[in-house]
Amino acid sequence: MKLATYKDGSRDGQLWVVSKDLALAAPAVGIASTMLEAVETWDAASPRLQALYERLNARDEAFATRFEPERCMAPLPRAPQWLDASAFLNHGRLMDKAFNNPPNPDFETIPLVYQGASDDLRGPVDDVEFTDDSLSIDMEGEFGVIVSDVSMGISAEQAISHIRLLVQINDWSLRKLGPREMRAGFGWLQAKPSTAFAPLAITPDEIAPFWDEARVKLPLHVAINGREVGRANGAEMHFSFGDIIAHCARTRRLSAGSIIGSGTVSNADRAAGSSCISEIRVIELLDQGASATPFLTWGDRVRMEARLPNGSAPFGVTDQRVVKA
Amino acid sequence: MKLATYKDGSRDGQLWVVSKDLALAAPAVGIASTMLEAVETWDAASPRLQALYERLNARDEAFATRFEPERCMAPLPRAPQWLDASAFLNHGRLMDKAFNNPPNPDFETIPLVYQGASDDLRGPVDDVEFTDDSLSIDMEGEFGVIVSDVSMGISAEQAISHIRLLVQINDWSLRKLGPREMRAGFGWLQAKPSTAFAPLAITPDEIAPFWDEARVKLPLHVAINGREVGRANGAEMHFSFGDIIAHCARTRRLSAGSIIGSGTVSNADRAAGSSCISEIRVIELLDQGASATPFLTWGDRVRMEARLPNGSAPFGVTDQRVVKA
Repeated sequence: MKLATYKDGSRDGQLWVVSKDLALAAPAVGIASTMLEAVETWDAASPRLQALYERLNARDEAFATRFEPERCMAPLPRAPQWLDASAFLNHGRLMDKAFNNPPNPDFETIPLVYQGASDDLRGPVDDVEFTDDSLSIDMEGEFGVIVSDVSMGISAEQAISHIRLLVQINDWSLRKLGPREMRAGFGWLQAKPSTAFAPLAITPDEIAPFWDEARVKLPLHVAINGREVGRANGAEMHFSFGDIIAHCARTRRLSAGSIIGSGTVSNADRAAGSSCISEIRVIELLDQGASATPFLTWGDRVRMEARLPNGSAPFGVTDQRVVKA
Repeated sequence: MKLATYKDGSRDGQLWVVSKDLALAAPAVGIASTMLEAVETWDAASPRLQALYERLNARDEAFATRFEPERCMAPLPRAPQWLDASAFLNHGRLMDKAFNNPPNPDFETIPLVYQGASDDLRGPVDDVEFTDDSLSIDMEGEFGVIVSDVSMGISAEQAISHIRLLVQINDWSLRKLGPREMRAGFGWLQAKPSTAFAPLAITPDEIAPFWDEARVKLPLHVAINGREVGRANGAEMHFSFGDIIAHCARTRRLSAGSIIGSGTVSNADRAAGSSCISEIRVIELLDQGASATPFLTWGDRVRMEARLPNGSAPFGVTDQRVVKA
């Protein structure tokens, strides 16, 4: 099924169910008032949400209205936790070149994960605000999962059973601030402003058989101002979401509603393009001797959508404009 | 006034008001059900909480019962955000020696802050669970503030006006995992398990005149298994809480209820002792040629309390036992 969070003036928004074809939506009244409540009470809530979903798909739901993505917040506007990996090694290798990072001896064996801010996650068509466009404004197209409660020390295999919903992410980044924060050793803070999400959080069956080996094996189409720059496939994710969850839970519990990200979707085949500008610029530098593609500035638009073979977008679309705060 | 969160089986607990002498407590029924709700609706809630506080202090509150710290969760068991600085440069210098870190050119001018997990903050007398006591289990005694909504790009001076409550913190750490995570550049994750809090979140007037220059200028008494190892004073904090909040909000908004930490309280005067074991061990190494104090193991107890000149503990006490998960 497909779930969305509609704006209602509150910080957490209101849970709605969306039909498979994205035509209709209905509020999950009486089941769970928010996405977080649904995830926290999943065993009780999900069969009832599924029943509502099936009524919507059958055009048999009295409270159905047209699905309006512009009314959507992030599926979890305020999540208990946002942990973002860098699980596509092709991206990691290119970024190490871009940032001139020292070699990481654990690169292929231990996932790299940073803790991001989860208090102010942004909706799919919300403007993204920055104070300064000289900080190298960039996007990062990613996939993610929302988990139920995860206990400390869980295995990667067990971790997979805690995945409740899949999401599509634009992890906005300020590249000029990245290298200093990496060198200082405390991780990213200013370099990672609020992250944005496609409107729909979906159960894994929605993209079967492309949810496979705990990876979203779909191409993520990324466009800047209407020009497609990337269509990298999630299949090349080196660490699975199970691996990443287990890494995060090694010394802590994860609360229901925690979001785990894949990091920038990236493929070794250059024909797939890139899901972030930094990668594009490093490739330009390597192949042509100089970076040509500029970072983003006021008014630029970034659109991202994963696509099924039939061309449909199972998570909906992020389509955001960069604006001055 | 002094506020606490009592366990009630929910993830966010129940808001209570505690008398100045820590003798009595009463639920904030009809004002705000949780600490987060109180902070989010501060202008409306705080005068009513203050009135309840004054009735408690005057022994004139019908629903008052004995204050029971063992019923307390963290003031915000689930905070929108937990951002922890390293604002005591004496601590930073010693830790750089302990971890053999490269020099940080911005050490005295740009605060070091990491984003911590805020979904599972622990109460003052909760056992602290770890899976492995070979990971160098350590404590970090700190002060912190809870803010109202903060806008992006705020100045350090303006930021101070958003401080609503002060807290006392034990930022549990796993030292063996720290250096690898620092070198990898994505910041701490496994090295920083769930953080614990003293029972009381207090308004700054509670410790006047020791809330000064946006710093908590009180000694933090730290004891391991009943032996005091530290009494460092918060006055030596190099960056103020205003500086740290402004640093965190440079490229993002901070939601009401975000917690900002000072980092380990540390003084240049060796007579003040230390608020973490790593510091003790580095000093032993520097002064005596070898570290002698062991990290913590199963059954060890850590007690922390800030003290006013009259000996009272304005935040209450954290007194926790290290146990195997």
